[in-house]
Amino acid sequence: MRSEVRTIAWRGGVVEILDQRKLPHAVRYLRLKTARQVAKAIRDMAIRGAPAIGVAAAMGLALTAYHSRARSREKLLEELRESYMVLRASRPTAVNLFWALDRVMRVAESSRAAEEARRRVVEEALKIMEEDIEANKRMGEHGARLIEDGDGILTHCNAGALATAGYGTALGVIRAAHAQGKRIRVYACETRPRLQGAKLTVWELMQDGIPVKLITDNMAAFLMQRGEVSKVIVGADRIIAKTGHVINKIGTLSHAIAAKYYGISFLVAAPTSTIDFESRVEEVIIEERDPREVLYIDGRRIAPEGVEVWNPAFDITPPDLVSYIITEKGVFKPEELRELGSVG
Amino acid sequence: MRSEVRTIAWRGGVVEILDQRKLPHAVRYLRLKTARQVAKAIRDMAIRGAPAIGVAAAMGLALTAYHSRARSREKLLEELRESYMVLRASRPTAVNLFWALDRVMRVAESSRAAEEARRRVVEEALKIMEEDIEANKRMGEHGARLIEDGDGILTHCNAGALATAGYGTALGVIRAAHAQGKRIRVYACETRPRLQGAKLTVWELMQDGIPVKLITDNMAAFLMQRGEVSKVIVGADRIIAKTGHVINKIGTLSHAIAAKYYGISFLVAAPTSTIDFESRVEEVIIEERDPREVLYIDGRRIAPEGVEVWNPAFDITPPDLVSYIITEKGVFKPEELRELGSVG
Repeated sequence: MRSEVRTIAWRGGVVEILDQRKLPHAVRYLRLKTARQVAKAIRDMAIRGAPAIGVAAAMGLALTAYHSRARSREKLLEELRESYMVLRASRPTAVNLFWALDRVMRVAESSRAAEEARRRVVEEALKIMEEDIEANKRMGEHGARLIEDGDGILTHCNAGALATAGYGTALGVIRAAHAQGKRIRVYACETRPRLQGAKLTVWELMQDGIPVKLITDNMAAFLMQRGEVSKVIVGADRIIAKTGHVINKIGTLSHAIAAKYYGISFLVAAPTSTIDFESRVEEVIIEERDPREVLYIDGRRIAPEGVEVWNPAFDITPPDLVSYIITEKGVFKPEELRELGSVG
Repeated sequence: MRSEVRTIAWRGGVVEILDQRKLPHAVRYLRLKTARQVAKAIRDMAIRGAPAIGVAAAMGLALTAYHSRARSREKLLEELRESYMVLRASRPTAVNLFWALDRVMRVAESSRAAEEARRRVVEEALKIMEEDIEANKRMGEHGARLIEDGDGILTHCNAGALATAGYGTALGVIRAAHAQGKRIRVYACETRPRLQGAKLTVWELMQDGIPVKLITDNMAAFLMQRGEVSKVIVGADRIIAKTGHVINKIGTLSHAIAAKYYGISFLVAAPTSTIDFESRVEEVIIEERDPREVLYIDGRRIAPEGVEVWNPAFDITPPDLVSYIITEKGVFKPEELRELGSVG
C-alpha cells in the first residue's frame, strides 16, 4: 500500500482512521476524539480486521487518557474503565480487541499518579501499533519461506495493511514473497456479505503491483479443481491455542475444506496477539450481524421483503484442515500453539 | 408458485417470458415474436435454468415456423436451420438446449410438406413444455421419498418453477415433500454473481409458504458444521452419463465437497433431457460470462477499476461427491446413468 495511505494514526489527541466503507471509491479519513467514537467506528466497520481493531481500541483508551481532566489516579482509572467497557462491547469475536484493551489497562493500573498514567497509556497504545507493524514484517519473513515461485495463492477477506496497523498478515506474507522476486498470482475472494476482498484486498494488491484476480467466493473450489491454486492463505480473528481452531471471516471454513479435498496447503497468518490461550472453542461468541448486510448491497435490496437471513460474521476452521499457522515468532502446526503459550 | 405466474407460455405466435432479471421487485413479461429475440432473452438470462432454456429454444423454433411465409418444405427447413444456429449459440453449457432444438428439428425434417412441418414444430415445442412440467412432478414424487421429516435442506441457485416450464427440479422435490406434510426448512444460497438464490428461490418458496432462510454462499459449510443441514439438493445444467459428473451453477462443487466432509447427502434433481449420453466431461464448454456480472451488483460497482475477474457460470462436481441423481425415471447413483441411456 502506498506509504501516504495509513489505516490508523495518532495525531496528538486525534485518532485518524481510514474509512474502509468508502473504499475503493474514495480515500476518506475519520477524525475521532473519544473512545465512544472509536467504538462506533469498530462496530460499523469503518475499521476492521482483528489486529487493526486491537490497535484502534488501544487508541480509544489513549483518547480517554489524553483528554481527561481527572486530577487523581482513581478518577482517571474510573474514566478508563468506562471507555474499556464501551470498547470491549464493540465486537465480540476478535481476541486482539480484548488483548490490547487489557494490556493498556494494566499499564494504567500500574501507574502511581494521574499524569504518569496519562502519558503511559498513550505510549502503550502507540507501542501496540508499532509492534503490530513489526510483527507483520516478521510474519512476512517467516511466511514467505512457505511460498514458492509460481504459486497461485487464494486469499479470503482482507488480511492486509488495512486489517492491521500496516503491511498485513496474510497479505504481508504475499508482499514479502513478492518482494523476494517470487512470481506469484493472487486470487482474491470477494467475501460476501461485506465484500472486503473486492473492495479492499484487490485495491491493496493493485497499489503494490501484485498480480490479482477477483472471484466470487463460490468459485474457489472450482479454481482449485482446475489446478490454479497451490496455497490458500488467510488471516484470523482468533486462534484457540488449546485445540488449534481458527476463527476467521465467514467463508474461510469452506475454502479450508476444499483445500483439504484437493491437497492444497492451508496457511493462516496472525500475530500471537490473535491467539487465545484461555478459551475453549465452544466458549467463543460468533458475532451475528445485521441481516441488512446480506439483504442490501451498496443500498440496493437484493431479496424479497420479509425473508429471513442468517448472517454470522465468522466461522470456525478445525485444526485438521490447517497446515501451518504463521506468527511473528515463527511457523507452527495448530497443535503446537499450546506450547507457545507456556513459553511466553 | 402462484398459478398466475408462468415462466414461459405460448400465446398463438407470441412467446411470453417472465423477465427474471426484474424479480423479485417486479413481475414483468417479455413478449417475443422471433427466434432471435428468444436467443437474446436466453443469452441475457431473462429466462434461465437448463430445462426452461430447452423449452424456450423449442419455442423459438416454433415462432420461426409459425410466422414463416415459406411455401416449400425446403424453404421452411432452411429458415428453421438458421434459427436453430442462432438459438444453439445462445448459451454453451446446458445440454437441454441442444436436446430440445434437435428434437424439434427432427420433427421438422420428418415432415413431408411445409404446412405439416409448421403445425408439427409448434406442437412439438408445446409438448416439450408439457413434458417438462410432467417430468418435474414425477421427479418430485421420486425425490420426496429421500426427504425426511425435520430435514434442513440446502439449495443453490434456482432449480425451481422459474428454471423449468413449471414446478421445478430441486424445488419440485422440496415442494412434493412439503405437500406430503413433511416439516422441512430450506436454506437458499444467494448464488453470486447473479443472485438467483436471493432473487428467485427465496421468492418462489415464500410464495408457497415453505420455510426458507437466505444465506451467502460462503456460509453453507459453517451451517453444515453446526448440524443445520441434513440434505443438499440442486439442479443440473448437464450430467455426463459416461462418468456421472454433474455440471451445475458455479458454487455447486463447493457445497458438494463440504457435504462430503460432513457426511451429508448430496442430491441432484434433473430430467433425463439434462443427461448428456455422448460427451466426455473434458469436452464440455464451461461458459465464462462478462466480468461485469461480478464487478457490478444492480448497477453499483463493487471493485476498483482495472481489476481482472474470472467468471465461470458453472462448475463440475465429480461423481464421488454425488449421492443420488433424481430423474423423472427414478433415482440413480451417478454410475448407473450409463445404463439409463442404453434402456431409453
